[in-house]
Amino acid sequence: MNKKIKIEVSARHIHLKKDDFEKLFGENAKLTVKKELSQPGMFAANETVSVKNENFQIDNLRIVGPLRSYTQIELSKTEARKFKIDPPLRRSGNIENSSGMIIIGPKGEIEINEGVIIAKRHIHMTLKDAEEINVKDGDLLKVKTVGERGLIFENVVARVDENFSWAMHIDTDEGNAGGIQEVEEGEVVLK
Amino acid sequence: MNKKIKIEVSARHIHLKKDDFEKLFGENAKLTVKKELSQPGMFAANETVSVKNENFQIDNLRIVGPLRSYTQIELSKTEARKFKIDPPLRRSGNIENSSGMIIIGPKGEIEINEGVIIAKRHIHMTLKDAEEINVKDGDLLKVKTVGERGLIFENVVARVDENFSWAMHIDTDEGNAGGIQEVEEGEVVLK
Repeated sequence: MNKKIKIEVSARHIHLKKDDFEKLFGENAKLTVKKELSQPGMFAANETVSVKNENFQIDNLRIVGPLRSYTQIELSKTEARKFKIDPPLRRSGNIENSSGMIIIGPKGEIEINEGVIIAKRHIHMTLKDAEEINVKDGDLLKVKTVGERGLIFENVVARVDENFSWAMHIDTDEGNAGGIQEVEEGEVVLK
Repeated sequence: MNKKIKIEVSARHIHLKKDDFEKLFGENAKLTVKKELSQPGMFAANETVSVKNENFQIDNLRIVGPLRSYTQIELSKTEARKFKIDPPLRRSGNIENSSGMIIIGPKGEIEINEGVIIAKRHIHMTLKDAEEINVKDGDLLKVKTVGERGLIFENVVARVDENFSWAMHIDTDEGNAGGIQEVEEGEVVLK
């Protein structure tokens, strides 16, 4: 028995910690909501930054709020190649020894020595969801998609948190490889 | 029992028919070999073209020789998005009603109304290979890769020809999604 899941394609984005946000946008700045995302409380902000290194620059990189305890840039492998960097494939928040970048905001510029990752494909779920399919946080699952570019994604990390909602996130390379446009339905393959 | 296979990532490229090649490079021009490819007789040429439409342009697009009976441009979905076109996913040579493009060579420029495709993932094999795994030309196979971005590619077309050699081809989006760098080993999943 497989369990249906909504698969969402996450484009490149940045999360900021308060300290870095204030350096980039000023001390009294606030993030403002452009669009709420599927995960409760999370939103695409109106605010964007530029990010660059000696090889490439991306402007209008969307901030995903709210502010976090760490600053993290999530790129696809395709984008990372343009910067000529090789960021590790990581679960969000696990940025130790990842790649660096210069971040430019309207009120200032900072350089981070780590924080750039390629996000590891994952499923957001509540504890109740996890119990239902008999997995725990960090377990690796398989998810099957359909269509002419159908794939089975292996090593999909279960991310369990009371504030999450049942959805899978992949990056734009994975979306393109699977012929997945923004949002599509897949199935978690249960043994 | 699975059967091992070499998986090669094909970057964007172009095939040209003689007539179009002569319009672009001149009547007495010849394609010259830069690098032989894994498929017998096929090669990356020293010669390149530019391709463009009203939205985007790619320079130094490599010609893959020898000349063919049709002109065809193979892009990834990521690249197609930059041109704001939506080429169909096709087996090589099947270009009817695919996307158009302007092609610029050193001696001339042509416009094609069809010929731009996204290549459908496929396995080149001889008739002997096909008989060994009990498939025929056009059958769809599954191929499993390993690693932290491991995938099972479904709907992989078997392409059977006496001049082929046992190898799977995917595009750069599929390579990036699977964490596959240029060449890696996978396994054809046999029932």
